[in-house]
Amino acid sequence: MIDTIGFDGDDTLWHNESLFSMTQERFRALLAHAADPADLDRRLLEAERANLRVYGYGIKGFVLSMIETAIAVTDGRVPARDLQSLIEFGKAMLDHPVELLPGVAEVVEALSSRHRLILVTKGDLFDQESKIARSGLAERFDAVEIVSEKDPATYRRVLARHGVDPARFVMVGNSVRSDILPVLSIGAHAVHVPYAITWAHEEAEPPDEHYRRIDSVLDLPPLLAAW
Amino acid sequence: MIDTIGFDGDDTLWHNESLFSMTQERFRALLAHAADPADLDRRLLEAERANLRVYGYGIKGFVLSMIETAIAVTDGRVPARDLQSLIEFGKAMLDHPVELLPGVAEVVEALSSRHRLILVTKGDLFDQESKIARSGLAERFDAVEIVSEKDPATYRRVLARHGVDPARFVMVGNSVRSDILPVLSIGAHAVHVPYAITWAHEEAEPPDEHYRRIDSVLDLPPLLAAW
Repeated sequence: MIDTIGFDGDDTLWHNESLFSMTQERFRALLAHAADPADLDRRLLEAERANLRVYGYGIKGFVLSMIETAIAVTDGRVPARDLQSLIEFGKAMLDHPVELLPGVAEVVEALSSRHRLILVTKGDLFDQESKIARSGLAERFDAVEIVSEKDPATYRRVLARHGVDPARFVMVGNSVRSDILPVLSIGAHAVHVPYAITWAHEEAEPPDEHYRRIDSVLDLPPLLAAW
Repeated sequence: MIDTIGFDGDDTLWHNESLFSMTQERFRALLAHAADPADLDRRLLEAERANLRVYGYGIKGFVLSMIETAIAVTDGRVPARDLQSLIEFGKAMLDHPVELLPGVAEVVEALSSRHRLILVTKGDLFDQESKIARSGLAERFDAVEIVSEKDPATYRRVLARHGVDPARFVMVGNSVRSDILPVLSIGAHAVHVPYAITWAHEEAEPPDEHYRRIDSVLDLPPLLAAW
């Protein structure tokens, strides 16, 4: 009997990757005179991967990686005003309204009356807290856990802290790598709700048992009722 | 009877502000051709304050504010390679070894045997976790709480989460604004250990009761024994 539901935030409850994609589109346009779009994407992804160890996940690190890439692909000839534009792109992302995915508000409200809900989200603490506050969902959740990495140890620690038996826990999220595999590895349940766009870094093969995949969070209540 | 001790991290357990000061010195040198040091400091502080609402606290936001300030004070004429230097300064800060303040390792070890210790630190989640891991102190603490703001609500939430009565809690930290005033306001104890350098934004008047000020964390065990 599952009594506690963990929800991922970015791209599960609200749009996030679309904001990065939109910004990356603006980044390509800004540097169109200097770099081929595919090459620019590749260079940016390389910078993001190399910087993950020092910056972690989040918009500020993304902006710093864009600046570094812009300087590198232009051999240092990018005008400072274009780099200022990249900073403004980042601020626009940080200030962007939080847009819930279809059905999220209703499903979270419905499930909150009969389950304990925990938001388990990865990334920049300040930005995530701001998004949770702006999402309007904060009071539906019994707990919020903002973590820097979603690995088995993190999930074990979160469940222990809230006294949740893994056998009675299901994690719902869009990332196989972050929301599904580590959760299954500790003996809990996982429901994958793919998001339309997936960041290249997040690619991973889904396993074939102990989990379900649904097309929309709207399919979650009937799935839980039947499980 | 105090049984739980909260410790601030930055500038209480380990050096932090000195790293910002050192970087700001390099920033002044880099832009010496374009701006008077005092004017540059003022412009940077203005940028940091204006950006706090979107970036929160931490090194990545500091670097973005330095870049923005460098572009502004040079009217966009700063060469991209200098902005790349600012990015490198930031990476050096994020990678810098964690240097404990004098006496910290011994005092934390001694207190951990008879008190519950909670690290309550503010800032960037990823950077703070990395510093805690590198500090070698992680296993001395019963809990670690990384928060985006240190206000009364935050302390109330942290103490409630760990079942700690405020009357039995003392917070030890270098910032009157973050570690002392909000803690006293919820009826707990606070010990101020000033750090040599104080960031202008952190200035606040100390209260005159229900708290103690000590010169070094080495004075903490006798103070607690006598309190």
